[in-house]
Amino acid sequence: MPQPELLETFPNPYPDRDYEIFMTTPEFTSLCPLGWTETDAAELALLKGGAPDFATINITYTPGAQCIELKSLKLYLWSFRNDGIFYERVVNRILDDLREKVQPKKLKVVGDFNVRGGLKSIITAEHVAR
Amino acid sequence: MPQPELLETFPNPYPDRDYEIFMTTPEFTSLCPLGWTETDAAELALLKGGAPDFATINITYTPGAQCIELKSLKLYLWSFRNDGIFYERVVNRILDDLREKVQPKKLKVVGDFNVRGGLKSIITAEHVAR
Amino acid sequence: MPQPELLETFPNPYPDRDYEIFMTTPEFTSLCPLGWTETDAAELALLKGGAPDFATINITYTPGAQCIELKSLKLYLWSFRNDGIFYERVVNRILDDLREKVQPKKLKVVGDFNVRGGLKSIITAEHVAR
Amino acid sequence: MPQPELLETFPNPYPDRDYEIFMTTPEFTSLCPLGWTETDAAELALLKGGAPDFATINITYTPGAQCIELKSLKLYLWSFRNDGIFYERVVNRILDDLREKVQPKKLKVVGDFNVRGGLKSIITAEHVAR
Amino acid sequence: MPQPELLETFPNPYPDRDYEIFMTTPEFTSLCPLGWTETDAAELALLKGGAPDFATINITYTPGAQCIELKSLKLYLWSFRNDGIFYERVVNRILDDLREKVQPKKLKVVGDFNVRGGLKSIITAEHVAR
Amino acid sequence: MPQPELLETFPNPYPDRDYEIFMTTPEFTSLCPLGWTETDAAELALLKGGAPDFATINITYTPGAQCIELKSLKLYLWSFRNDGIFYERVVNRILDDLREKVQPKKLKVVGDFNVRGGLKSIITAEHVAR
Amino acid sequence: MPQPELLETFPNPYPDRDYEIFMTTPEFTSLCPLGWTETDAAELALLKGGAPDFATINITYTPGAQCIELKSLKLYLWSFRNDGIFYERVVNRILDDLREKVQPKKLKVVGDFNVRGGLKSIITAEHVAR
Amino acid sequence: MPQPELLETFPNPYPDRDYEIFMTTPEFTSLCPLGWTETDAAELALLKGGAPDFATINITYTPGAQCIELKSLKLYLWSFRNDGIFYERVVNRILDDLREKVQPKKLKVVGDFNVRGGLKSIITAEHVAR
Amino acid sequence: MPQPELLETFPNPYPDRDYEIFMTTPEFTSLCPLGWTETDAAELALLKGGAPDFATINITYTPGAQCIELKSLKLYLWSFRNDGIFYERVVNRILDDLREKVQPKKLKVVGDFNVRGGLKSIITAEHVAR
Amino acid sequence: MPQPELLETFPNPYPDRDYEIFMTTPEFTSLCPLGWTETDAAELALLKGGAPDFATINITYTPGAQCIELKSLKLYLWSFRNDGIFYERVVNRILDDLREKVQPKKLKVVGDFNVRGGLKSIITAEHVAR
Repeated sequence: MPQPELLETFPNPYPDRDYEIFMTTPEFTSLCPLGWTETDAAELALLKGGAPDFATINITYTPGAQCIELKSLKLYLWSFRNDGIFYERVVNRILDDLREKVQPKKLKVVGDFNVRGGLKSIITAEHVAR
Repeated sequence: MPQPELLETFPNPYPDRDYEIFMTTPEFTSLCPLGWTETDAAELALLKGGAPDFATINITYTPGAQCIELKSLKLYLWSFRNDGIFYERVVNRILDDLREKVQPKKLKVVGDFNVRGGLKSIITAEHVAR
Repeated sequence: MPQPELLETFPNPYPDRDYEIFMTTPEFTSLCPLGWTETDAAELALLKGGAPDFATINITYTPGAQCIELKSLKLYLWSFRNDGIFYERVVNRILDDLREKVQPKKLKVVGDFNVRGGLKSIITAEHVAR
Repeated sequence: MPQPELLETFPNPYPDRDYEIFMTTPEFTSLCPLGWTETDAAELALLKGGAPDFATINITYTPGAQCIELKSLKLYLWSFRNDGIFYERVVNRILDDLREKVQPKKLKVVGDFNVRGGLKSIITAEHVAR
Repeated sequence: MPQPELLETFPNPYPDRDYEIFMTTPEFTSLCPLGWTETDAAELALLKGGAPDFATINITYTPGAQCIELKSLKLYLWSFRNDGIFYERVVNRILDDLREKVQPKKLKVVGDFNVRGGLKSIITAEHVAR
Repeated sequence: MPQPELLETFPNPYPDRDYEIFMTTPEFTSLCPLGWTETDAAELALLKGGAPDFATINITYTPGAQCIELKSLKLYLWSFRNDGIFYERVVNRILDDLREKVQPKKLKVVGDFNVRGGLKSIITAEHVAR
Repeated sequence: MPQPELLETFPNPYPDRDYEIFMTTPEFTSLCPLGWTETDAAELALLKGGAPDFATINITYTPGAQCIELKSLKLYLWSFRNDGIFYERVVNRILDDLREKVQPKKLKVVGDFNVRGGLKSIITAEHVAR
Repeated sequence: MPQPELLETFPNPYPDRDYEIFMTTPEFTSLCPLGWTETDAAELALLKGGAPDFATINITYTPGAQCIELKSLKLYLWSFRNDGIFYERVVNRILDDLREKVQPKKLKVVGDFNVRGGLKSIITAEHVAR
Repeated sequence: MPQPELLETFPNPYPDRDYEIFMTTPEFTSLCPLGWTETDAAELALLKGGAPDFATINITYTPGAQCIELKSLKLYLWSFRNDGIFYERVVNRILDDLREKVQPKKLKVVGDFNVRGGLKSIITAEHVAR
Repeated sequence: MPQPELLETFPNPYPDRDYEIFMTTPEFTSLCPLGWTETDAAELALLKGGAPDFATINITYTPGAQCIELKSLKLYLWSFRNDGIFYERVVNRILDDLREKVQPKKLKVVGDFNVRGGLKSIITAEHVAR
């Protein structure tokens, strides 16, 4: 299960200025949910879940009072490794977890998933604080 | 004949947020309509239609209540394989079929067709729900 | 001489929707007008015109009642092959011929000409129907 | 079924010189053999065969007495469109058909197949006349 | 633990000809062995192993009597997902497992691992049957 | 410590026209602050600070009465070489130092930092004179 | 000294339409002004000026009554070859010379200068006729 | 008709050293021979020959007593513009004409022809003086 | 001063097979030796050495009994950070230090240094054990 | 006139090892010899020579007792700036000057000249000490 409690923050050193932080990693991996994967029983026994998915995750935000601590973000993204979760949920879940923990002024999460069945998917979700 | 009945959907897990889903495949193929192809009788007998066309299809949408099920989209796009159909119809037909089946808030379809006679064609159609 | 009478159209299958068609060919060639070329008499005798020019031509339009028939566009662009004509005239002439023949809602023509004397030229002309 | 009888040749205009001809097309498509595809019954009914495969085919040869006629090669490659055939057979079959029909001094066929299940395959077979 | 028993083969359809098969996937992931990772206790608890490693794996071989079945290769590579294993072992282990199971005439395995501490590593091992 | 006193300016030769100057260098390096680096005591003794960071720094500005003297900018950026400083501070500090010294009409600073722990960071800060 | 008197024009063949002409050359070279170059006396004696600078010059304009004659532009740009002149002056000087001679409706000049001391500079100036 | 009499040479300034000269132009055009083109009567009347072909021509040689004069090579390549000639003849004809006129120690000609019917062709011929 | 004592090794897990390990980092930096730099006294005071140099370092080796421990290599390369050393010495010094410490069967070191004065340098040194 | 007396060397710090040094600059410029340029009298008066040529110069050598001092190479290459000289002479002249001054074990010079009249030229000359 994704573990948002791994996310840590540190105080924004320039809280009076709106500036943008972009972070990207090509090393995101999770599993396809059980029952949706095309792979057969032998695979499921192997992975205790569906087939692996791979993605590049891009995060862009304008910090408010807090910045995302880079190493904790890495740990948080690792926590998806052995869970079965759909593409749409991956991106919106990261958006929600970061929004709640970091309270940014603006936040955008993009998940760029590898080809499956000849089709590539890119999902983009945004949040703007009111 | 394109078979829109192959398209399936699943409930949008984040219906309260407008977010964007982009899907792309370089593996679209259909046939040129009979009577328009430059190829001769032997070819037509071979293919029961005109010369093959190849395209990359890009689909971008903002889901409403439903999301497009990825595997069913693949099957739907395969259903063009042995039909004779013009470029303009391919793109607008996909737009219409997805619009009707998925009821997205916004939808854009781009067909990027391979060079024919030294000319490359890219066709773009959009729909915004009112 | 460019031969706009070679251009043919077919009825737009989706006349109620504004959509965009982009066509591009890297295979446009014409001649530099006599008297402007730097090449000498021997060349002129050879070509019955000035030095060859080469360009990529990009055409983007929103069809009205008619679409451009692709093969006829190819023939029309071939008809510039042995004429002496300046860059500026090539692009504006194609714009005018297509506008008159096809009556598009919007039309843009870009001529991207190869390097001459170390300088590359790209010329862009647009038309919007009122 | 691949139809090698579609292949035509013309006399090599420079038979006394060993020179090389390379031809490539990104527009090869065939089907996965029935019973090996992961797709279900609905797909099979749709395509009368397995899931579509896509490849770029590269052919390099040194002509002997005959050259491959380009348009007939195109028709021959089209004849794989609706057959179920494995990657290894596609490449070796094209090698054998060209070898028999064209009798080249040297011949190489490369099939560069699109990603399936996250894996890309490139298969290379060569023939040298003795 | 890597599970070579997942690897399956099928009879080489062209056993009399030496030809080359190249397969590549950017979707390999394993873990860094416990005790070598720089990450702390919280991470270890999370992953039951060290930090994740990511690689592109390239395999090139000349089949003997058997070819590697593509889907079984995918499953075999998945079986490294949650094991702690060094780069050098990953590449040599895949070489040994494929050599034993498939008995190819020639075999090369390349592991192209993502940047760690600013350093990228590519490891190449080869086997030629005598 | 960054040394803004190294920055020099010269009078803008075209003060009546708003124009844009973009400068970029891939050769920025600083150190990670002590106490945040993952590296151990031996490293710290070696560098008298944390692990090295590397970045490309892009600066875009519209000069007012003064332009930035290029060589002095190089010296100023060198002055970060052996200081421990976070990414967010690097970018905002350069923005503040240039703003104060050069009084530009508009100013943007982008720091594009190399991958650390599989994550790349790009930080962008802007200033517009009122 | 730059010689604007080398610039020639010809009547715009389509004066009633606003269209855009882009010209670019990677072959601009001038010298660094004396007294600012880091090179020593021997170099200065050699070049009768400072160290050489190199740039790509991009010019975009909307012609009014006149177009820029391409060959004369080439000669004009050559006339900077052996003059000592700062980057900022190069770009603004070309803008001023073209504006005065050609009276365009809109004009933009971009100078993209090669790396010096690890820093690359791109300078952009624009003019819009009122 | 190709006009080899347009080719001119100048004495090799370093005849005692074997060195290599490579020349390339993306601006070669000729016509498809009459009777082989797929285009119809209207096109043929237009061009007095078949459909236009386009190629990049690469020439590599080791000069003997003579070098190829660059401008005369340009004129010679222009002389193919309005002739109907097959790909194989284009490349071998240029090889023969240059060999006879320039007597190089080694000579290679590569014709890289644009896509026709989805197929790209590259033809390579070489000559080594004995 | 470069500190080869920082280099550590671990036993090669496959000592009976010759295989190749390639490692690369774009994050090498050292200083130009004092007295050779073009920069003036102010800079020297700043850096306690000459101007910074930047390079990508590529290392390829065939391990004997020992492999290079990746993290220790990183620390060793950091130890050049504040030393004045010529390009030729950097590459040959790394070769000698690794050769002595690791005793590889084959070893190649490539230093790809950033542009200085418009010139880029790449230096390659190799060692083969006898 | 090219001034080989500007070239300086320093003692090779590793004279017992054969290693390779590659240097490249995109900033070479010279003039076309008078009487061969296509440009007219006005240009000649302007430049006191023919039209400017531009090239990237690549130099690869294995040092003997001496290495080429980088800054002196830069000055030497500058000394071609205002001389009229053919492509073939540029490359062979640099080869001869470096050979004489530096006495390398092996030396290769490549001149990659910009497009003129639609043709690009690359000239390669090599020297191996006996």
